[in-house]
Amino acid sequence: MTTDLERLAERLREFARVRDWEQFHTPKNLTMALAGEVGELVAEFQWLTAEESAKPDPEALARIRTELGDVTLYLIRLADVLGVDLVEVAQAKLDDNDRRYDADRYRGSARKAPPSS
Amino acid sequence: MTTDLERLAERLREFARVRDWEQFHTPKNLTMALAGEVGELVAEFQWLTAEESAKPDPEALARIRTELGDVTLYLIRLADVLGVDLVEVAQAKLDDNDRRYDADRYRGSARKAPPSS
Amino acid sequence: MTTDLERLAERLREFARVRDWEQFHTPKNLTMALAGEVGELVAEFQWLTAEESAKPDPEALARIRTELGDVTLYLIRLADVLGVDLVEVAQAKLDDNDRRYDADRYRGSARKAPPSS
Amino acid sequence: MTTDLERLAERLREFARVRDWEQFHTPKNLTMALAGEVGELVAEFQWLTAEESAKPDPEALARIRTELGDVTLYLIRLADVLGVDLVEVAQAKLDDNDRRYDADRYRGSARKAPPSS
Repeated sequence: MTTDLERLAERLREFARVRDWEQFHTPKNLTMALAGEVGELVAEFQWLTAEESAKPDPEALARIRTELGDVTLYLIRLADVLGVDLVEVAQAKLDDNDRRYDADRYRGSARKAPPSS
Repeated sequence: MTTDLERLAERLREFARVRDWEQFHTPKNLTMALAGEVGELVAEFQWLTAEESAKPDPEALARIRTELGDVTLYLIRLADVLGVDLVEVAQAKLDDNDRRYDADRYRGSARKAPPSS
Repeated sequence: MTTDLERLAERLREFARVRDWEQFHTPKNLTMALAGEVGELVAEFQWLTAEESAKPDPEALARIRTELGDVTLYLIRLADVLGVDLVEVAQAKLDDNDRRYDADRYRGSARKAPPSS
Repeated sequence: MTTDLERLAERLREFARVRDWEQFHTPKNLTMALAGEVGELVAEFQWLTAEESAKPDPEALARIRTELGDVTLYLIRLADVLGVDLVEVAQAKLDDNDRRYDADRYRGSARKAPPSS
């Protein structure tokens, strides 16, 4: 994992340790926490058009940044308790997508070929 | 953003560009894609006990790694199209949580003090 | 709860009982299962425009119907194990929304006034 | 659809009409709203043990009831704009699960046989 992500993982480990919250940080619970935060992120975009979503107003963007921070923290913590390197699994998945979605064949039809399904 | 994350963001940009998928990669759509992948991750843990979730069997772990890869890719891509630095917002949120959740006061009671709500 | 929902709740109770699955049907687990199914529903719509989402093609509609069935079943089962009457809580929430969102004041601005936030 | 659900669907139709919110109620947007509400429900249970989740304290239960109301309303509204009968698709899915999960074969092993995957 990259140095920045490692440092965040370490800070989160310490954050949980000093509060005696490790008991709550099972993969099951952390996945739920991640889902809850992603739900808040979805709610930010639910009534926006595609175009509006690309240019959220300043207050919305501030909330979105906070939610992205929450999502990132729970994702890092979840990967850490599972012993998974996020950069490694993301690279592996992207390598796989590169092979699976031939550029010529899938050009302009993302709808039928979601990057990761 | 860290070098590894930047490199992944760049690969994803190129991945979308050569397939003419940029048109589909609005923040609204990418947030939905992220939510869909997190849903698959939640499904991996739904029937497991807390203890079982900490030690998934090899096949489950392989699927979880793939889902974590998908989640990470969509999160990086979403942040990239919004111009948000994930490490920066995660650090800011963790600084905030450090101030908000006094270690002595919240010790052992994560349930009443989720790290990010 | 209405007769149809009651009948489904009862069928689900029996379904769980004969398979000895009641042990897995805690509110925590059922909420995760619900989230997983909603994730699949979100995935159906992620690359569609607003207009396309209103007229899914026949195969997509068939999958959407299946997902809506899954979501409905888990929602009924979750409410049942919690002893909650879905029609009652939905009516109460709608009464509340009626009071909260004055028709004249919120006309045409759903984005700032989501029905339920 | 049952009378109670039909009545709620009709009330929601009127609720949207008088506020000129029909323009926002595309299946895509309503699915996101549903996902956002389910995220709030998941958050209620994230730090609870399985046992605690079965007996939420009174304040938690009040919030859970409100979230279940929100989820039910968005699910009914989504099905209505898509022209889907929730009771019909739920029954069809349960019939299917009854065939798929033989009681003797799957007894006590829900984890390997989620009712709806």
